[in-house]
Amino acid sequence: MRFTSNMAQIIDGKAMSKEIRLELHQELKEFVAAGNRLPHLTAVIVGEDPASQTYVHNKMLACKEVGISSETKILPESTTQDELLQLINQLNTDENVTGVLIQLPVPDHIDERTICNAVAAEKDVDGFHEINIGRLALDMEGTIPATPLGVKTLLERSNIETFGRNAVVVGRSKNVSLPMAMLLHSDGRHSIKGLDSTVTICHRYTPPKELAKFCRQADIIVVAVGKPGLITKDMIKPGACIIDVGINRIKDEKTGKFKLVGDVDYEEVRQVAGHITPVPGGVGPMTVTMLMHNTLKAAKKQNATRLLNV
Amino acid sequence: MRFTSNMAQIIDGKAMSKEIRLELHQELKEFVAAGNRLPHLTAVIVGEDPASQTYVHNKMLACKEVGISSETKILPESTTQDELLQLINQLNTDENVTGVLIQLPVPDHIDERTICNAVAAEKDVDGFHEINIGRLALDMEGTIPATPLGVKTLLERSNIETFGRNAVVVGRSKNVSLPMAMLLHSDGRHSIKGLDSTVTICHRYTPPKELAKFCRQADIIVVAVGKPGLITKDMIKPGACIIDVGINRIKDEKTGKFKLVGDVDYEEVRQVAGHITPVPGGVGPMTVTMLMHNTLKAAKKQNATRLLNV
Repeated sequence: MRFTSNMAQIIDGKAMSKEIRLELHQELKEFVAAGNRLPHLTAVIVGEDPASQTYVHNKMLACKEVGISSETKILPESTTQDELLQLINQLNTDENVTGVLIQLPVPDHIDERTICNAVAAEKDVDGFHEINIGRLALDMEGTIPATPLGVKTLLERSNIETFGRNAVVVGRSKNVSLPMAMLLHSDGRHSIKGLDSTVTICHRYTPPKELAKFCRQADIIVVAVGKPGLITKDMIKPGACIIDVGINRIKDEKTGKFKLVGDVDYEEVRQVAGHITPVPGGVGPMTVTMLMHNTLKAAKKQNATRLLNV
Repeated sequence: MRFTSNMAQIIDGKAMSKEIRLELHQELKEFVAAGNRLPHLTAVIVGEDPASQTYVHNKMLACKEVGISSETKILPESTTQDELLQLINQLNTDENVTGVLIQLPVPDHIDERTICNAVAAEKDVDGFHEINIGRLALDMEGTIPATPLGVKTLLERSNIETFGRNAVVVGRSKNVSLPMAMLLHSDGRHSIKGLDSTVTICHRYTPPKELAKFCRQADIIVVAVGKPGLITKDMIKPGACIIDVGINRIKDEKTGKFKLVGDVDYEEVRQVAGHITPVPGGVGPMTVTMLMHNTLKAAKKQNATRLLNV
């Protein structure tokens, strides 16, 4: 081993995603070959947000890669909540639609929670329906939001030990941090196999000194806040595993161009950490891949239900 | 102040309960005087567990104290899951029944989760239905399980500062610890007013040294495990607030008689802590009182829905 190899091992989310998408492609082929309908994902964007368009575009590309049929519906910013609910209802009852994804954020005049709960729980491939969140909290089978499921998979496939270890989740969002904390702390023997870590949830009201202290005690840190440079080298226990969910668009001072960075001071932290995810190419592709996983899983479950109903 | 007053202030859950039950009694009187139906709680026990009978008896006494109409149905141990589901269905559709409480544990041949989800979410005064757990996770209005709601109320009425403080929850049960962690860490500006603490969830796989370390960093400890003497003096930060949810029946070595103790070494810990709940007389009565709160709240909500449907 060369001297410079104290640097953290990079967890390559892009390569892992590719691998999993191949597995999913194989699984899908077998599913269809067995006489089942091709799974279909419908994504809905309301308004003109360019970031939403990029995200959904990436999801559609992943569908192609895996072999899932897909479609994007773009509605004007002026769409009313009732109109959106009507469309969701129609997709809920359409037998040809396996998964329904309403890209967030929705415009201010539409209530996000109402929309998340309107998608039929069994077509909710994002895992944002209150029943799916409830099931996750209870360690029961359901749909797990794609980002935390992606992080769990990253940890597992990188052989990061979580059992009895200290994990810190920075952030308390309902789509990422809270389900992440649930997966990290919960029981490995339950239906959803939890990771059995001791978990600390830090957030905007955690004093900076306390955040640094909890991070320094952590074997695993998952940060999902949206603040470039929040996690610095002095906050890292040597050898810890750092998962960076943040995606921030900042101006590179050297080149004057915009670039994507996470919430972790990557160049510095990788000198101390044992494992680290880059941004881009870490959690991002895994999120999209887990959406594919959720869609195929939904197709299988819907299929089983249909067979029961015959 | 006398020298001995370094001892922790005792949080008297019994006295606080009495106060709240009086408030609820007043609220109920006004509710009924306004022409509304008297709220009614039906409790169901399956089998002969003496502890269950004591718990339900205490709940029925609390109903009397507050003025809620109540009834206990005791079913034989041999009751099948289908028979129990049938009864629950009947109670769900009975307009005279406001709240339905299935005392846990149910016998082994009945699936607890199926039962918890069978009670109509709006009559689920225990807050155990997956939808109510999901709503709590999302900081949305719903029914909050009685014990964590009782602890939250104890903290608030004792003026314990939680904002930005370190809290430790010991245990990861779905009825107490997890909802407690949700209430402690979540946002004080959301529908369910969270307590904005940094929260660490410790459990059976947290190594003892780590448990001690996290506890020593905590301003608030909530322990709900069922292990007498788990939390000792050396694990306490001077001035911390200690909430003991444990109820353990042990033999008193001095008297040879059985007595109830919590998970905290009370006599020792109170010499260091700032606030402490006794067992019995701390969290226990508050749990029962919050069940009354939940029943009255359910009555008000059902009433509003009925008016809407007229």
